[in-house]
Amino acid sequence: MAGTRTVRILLVGVGNLGRRFCRILAAKSPRLEARYGLRLSLVGAADSGGIAYAPGGLDPGLIAALKERGDSVRAYPGAGATGTALELVREAEADLVCEATPVNLAAGAEPGLSVIREALARGMHVVTPNKGPIVLAYRELVGLARERGVELRFDGTVAGGLPALYLGARDLRGAEIRRVEAVPNLVTGYILDLLADGLPWEEALGRARDEGALEADPSFDLDGWDAAAKLVIIVNHVLGYPATLGDVEREGIRGVDPGEVRRARARGGLFRLVARAELVDGGYRLAVRPEEIPPGHPLSHLGRKGMGVVYHTDIYGTISAAIREEDPVPSSATMLRDILDIYCGRSTSAP
Amino acid sequence: MAGTRTVRILLVGVGNLGRRFCRILAAKSPRLEARYGLRLSLVGAADSGGIAYAPGGLDPGLIAALKERGDSVRAYPGAGATGTALELVREAEADLVCEATPVNLAAGAEPGLSVIREALARGMHVVTPNKGPIVLAYRELVGLARERGVELRFDGTVAGGLPALYLGARDLRGAEIRRVEAVPNLVTGYILDLLADGLPWEEALGRARDEGALEADPSFDLDGWDAAAKLVIIVNHVLGYPATLGDVEREGIRGVDPGEVRRARARGGLFRLVARAELVDGGYRLAVRPEEIPPGHPLSHLGRKGMGVVYHTDIYGTISAAIREEDPVPSSATMLRDILDIYCGRSTSAP
Repeated sequence: MAGTRTVRILLVGVGNLGRRFCRILAAKSPRLEARYGLRLSLVGAADSGGIAYAPGGLDPGLIAALKERGDSVRAYPGAGATGTALELVREAEADLVCEATPVNLAAGAEPGLSVIREALARGMHVVTPNKGPIVLAYRELVGLARERGVELRFDGTVAGGLPALYLGARDLRGAEIRRVEAVPNLVTGYILDLLADGLPWEEALGRARDEGALEADPSFDLDGWDAAAKLVIIVNHVLGYPATLGDVEREGIRGVDPGEVRRARARGGLFRLVARAELVDGGYRLAVRPEEIPPGHPLSHLGRKGMGVVYHTDIYGTISAAIREEDPVPSSATMLRDILDIYCGRSTSAP
Repeated sequence: MAGTRTVRILLVGVGNLGRRFCRILAAKSPRLEARYGLRLSLVGAADSGGIAYAPGGLDPGLIAALKERGDSVRAYPGAGATGTALELVREAEADLVCEATPVNLAAGAEPGLSVIREALARGMHVVTPNKGPIVLAYRELVGLARERGVELRFDGTVAGGLPALYLGARDLRGAEIRRVEAVPNLVTGYILDLLADGLPWEEALGRARDEGALEADPSFDLDGWDAAAKLVIIVNHVLGYPATLGDVEREGIRGVDPGEVRRARARGGLFRLVARAELVDGGYRLAVRPEEIPPGHPLSHLGRKGMGVVYHTDIYGTISAAIREEDPVPSSATMLRDILDIYCGRSTSAP
């Protein structure tokens, strides 16, 4: 390995994913330097309370610790300041921005969208697990990245830590993809499993809410918006087919009959909210709806913590992939995957 | 797309895989040129009966047709000649060699190994689905490719058309891989399923042989050599851990008790020849043995035509992938995947 290359990183959004990403950086630094010759240096961070910036590098473990005890990054000794994410991205010297603010499909995907636009415009690479900006502005952002000669990566926007996008867009090159089926949402699967266990609807919802799996506004998950957003990203990025949320026939799980879910399980089947793109007359028909996954189907093994995708192709057969993630670590680690994919380039060397 | 780039290809070995690869090239050319700006030009081919060479390009459909009617490529009008694969690779002007001769672990992996050495030494990229040379000379060949600044790709050596190597080596970068489980061999799975159906051993073997699934010398599959070879490639390439066939504890399926297989199915389990690498005391313990895959396991859905792999990691959770391939097309298409990966580089654009 010829020398070590330093990558200066700004982290925008230090919640569930951002905080875990800091922990991963702290734990993995020596290995990444030894194995890939990369020094990933977190030089700036922003949350809703302020910013921290140090050109020589912040301690990612300390950032995580601040957040874990409820502080803003503004409390970072000697580097914390007032200011917004957008100001940080506008003024800091860095090579790459990790955009990990919460998903916000309703409000124009802000603040993420503005941060990504600014970072790309300034010639910085961007990696993000935030669906919002990618769903709402796929063409614009991909075009902007290309124009500025930088990379925009968003592997974490679909099915958590599963590299569903890399698998589809890279390993299926040259194929006609005739059908995509995905189970990209965790909480709906959990609720459907509770129904299969015999719980009535109210109790199933209550338990998911009590365990923190369901947001205060459950519509995003229950009505299939999350699954539809992920499908739109797969369709644009993997299938190269322009689509928006409005193109998805969307049926959530609220109308599901618990008896049907229980009968499916008795037959060895599994009820899940399935997102599907199907090639029809040269275009793709997109739908999200709850349905039974029969035994023997490549996703029939999914448990409560499982998500997956199936690509039906002409020349590569039927290829499926699934992940079991017990916590949000894999979702946050997608930012590391994206960064390493940018800097390790095309070489397919071992981890 | 700025202009079209021509890639001059030599195909060595025009059997089951090579012939189908020609059919894929013939069918996909317009799409590949339109989508990726690549003109894949087959300029030479070699089989055991001779060679064909035309600097302006051969018709891959005609090569396939010659082979389908039992001729050698030497019969190619105006381009056929006597000569060996090694001579072709030594003398032809080309950018890339597809090495698709039969697997031969016993005889020093020839003729594939010499062809690959020669191609790399001459500065040509090599793609191959041939396990033999990669198992027997992984370090040497990877080193030679690096030294010459060319790419050596062998995605098709493991689990047919499943991108098990790409997934592991690229998408798990940065992770510690604690365990790998693979079901990489089709015919042993078929035979075990026949035992589960209630057939006695002799009949199960006879049926697999009659259907052409089992080679004349069945030891390669039945005694686990094929699975062990694939495991060795995964371990070297994905885990970055040097290993050879001799490091694999190997138990084939011949000793399997049909009663045990039937009882496994009755419990909802699946019997398969499983290849496993497990991190123990900083090294990997490698084993191939027949065992029951329990219900709910990510590979429990595999059917007769299914192969798969599971990576257990520290930061990316448990990631599995599987393929169902009805015929050898996906295995031969891995050569196209490898070529496109070399020439499309790091961009992760859609197919």
